[in-house]
Amino acid sequence: MSNPKVKAAVKLRESKHRRATGRFLIESPRDYLRVREIGLCVPQLFLHGPFLNDDERIEFYHERGVWHHAQDVREVTEPVLRKLAYRENPTGLVAVVEQPNWSLEAIEWRDDSLVLVAQGLAKPGNLGAMARTAAAAGCAAMIVVDAVVDPFNPNAIRASTGAVFSLPIVCADSDDCLAVLEREKVKPFAAALREGAVDHSEANYCGRVAMIIGAEDRGLDETWLAYCEKLGQVVRIPMVEGAVDSLNASVAAGVLLFEVNRQRSASC
Amino acid sequence: MSNPKVKAAVKLRESKHRRATGRFLIESPRDYLRVREIGLCVPQLFLHGPFLNDDERIEFYHERGVWHHAQDVREVTEPVLRKLAYRENPTGLVAVVEQPNWSLEAIEWRDDSLVLVAQGLAKPGNLGAMARTAAAAGCAAMIVVDAVVDPFNPNAIRASTGAVFSLPIVCADSDDCLAVLEREKVKPFAAALREGAVDHSEANYCGRVAMIIGAEDRGLDETWLAYCEKLGQVVRIPMVEGAVDSLNASVAAGVLLFEVNRQRSASC
Repeated sequence: MSNPKVKAAVKLRESKHRRATGRFLIESPRDYLRVREIGLCVPQLFLHGPFLNDDERIEFYHERGVWHHAQDVREVTEPVLRKLAYRENPTGLVAVVEQPNWSLEAIEWRDDSLVLVAQGLAKPGNLGAMARTAAAAGCAAMIVVDAVVDPFNPNAIRASTGAVFSLPIVCADSDDCLAVLEREKVKPFAAALREGAVDHSEANYCGRVAMIIGAEDRGLDETWLAYCEKLGQVVRIPMVEGAVDSLNASVAAGVLLFEVNRQRSASC
Repeated sequence: MSNPKVKAAVKLRESKHRRATGRFLIESPRDYLRVREIGLCVPQLFLHGPFLNDDERIEFYHERGVWHHAQDVREVTEPVLRKLAYRENPTGLVAVVEQPNWSLEAIEWRDDSLVLVAQGLAKPGNLGAMARTAAAAGCAAMIVVDAVVDPFNPNAIRASTGAVFSLPIVCADSDDCLAVLEREKVKPFAAALREGAVDHSEANYCGRVAMIIGAEDRGLDETWLAYCEKLGQVVRIPMVEGAVDSLNASVAAGVLLFEVNRQRSASC
């Protein structure tokens, strides 16, 4: 199969091509409907009719020329579909989608904005689960700092149950992120099990808050810890001694973000 | 390779053989050290020297006849190691371990015991992450009800970071679990987004508590919801409307268990 559009799409399975083009792939009818509802641009839609059910066939083929005039819809054979799809059991739909164009500067700060900062994440599933949690907790944005993974990795999309489409997720390096947090007077809270950390339920989360979670294995960088000690607080989730070394990063994010919300609804 | 011990071990990659024999496989030196520390019985240890580093070679070969006399240690070739190991990049060690023998009747109930009940789980990663969270939160046990997965699935072990070795994890059917909770006067709390549910931070978690979390997609069974409405409470984690449909099961477990602990340290 030498079709250049298929070739270009297959490349989007790799992170570097997603970054270079600002595009990504989705491969489930459910994600396609979400993406369309949000209004993300879908320049290319590949369909394999025999793998779709009747409703899906009507739904998706009807798109041709109706929903989005710039959209190119084409029928592909099963081998081409399998080349495009990441899953072992493809659904009959693969779409090329334009990434939403979020930036640090575009975050809308209110007096009580809450953002989640994830530093150094290496697992797409964790990134996705954290995005899902941040969206549920009403975060204004998730800032992904120094990450090896990108939010549009297929496993991140899946774990996020679509949150990566709608939640503003900004990829940034530490310096830029720190500069914006400082300029916008966002109080930083680092989650870490270190001496001097206060219990997560005893910190004061009024005002603009950034909850900062470190990488799965290594924890948070020293730069970030020092920044939080200076301008905010280092907090710890009280755990039973000796049971496990740490919590899963997305579980820790959930415990902390919902504690912020609990406190605020009680007292801020 | 027709060695019957290798054959028997390879079978443990399947859930039904783990259930039938009460044994499971581990395949990392780290897990092996944990298992040994806890004192689980290791009837069989397979090593492939060239894949171990010097420290590991000294550590593990030295086991022969020293640590556990019943233990059978044998050197295997790389092809046999690959057959035994679940990972693509095996570590040089695969061990057959006896499952800890937990049962509903053996749970030690104190006045303020907290247990996590997970109903209908289908994803081993979620089971493992929930075990890790339950251990960190000091749960007396995790009860896995009507599960398709078992706690000694390799992905469950990995996600638990070893918690499945030490936390009492009991697999049971709903009726038996309900009977024990009722007999032991454990107040049941179901996590569900349904009408009449109270905010998770407004429930009263004093006394013996069971936090009950439903399956990833389907949520909690009606039987369990009815039981909680009658003898306990249905609680909800307040989420932003329209953002996502639900939280990840292990994130929800984390938010709820640490809210129980927070409340108790503040007021019980």
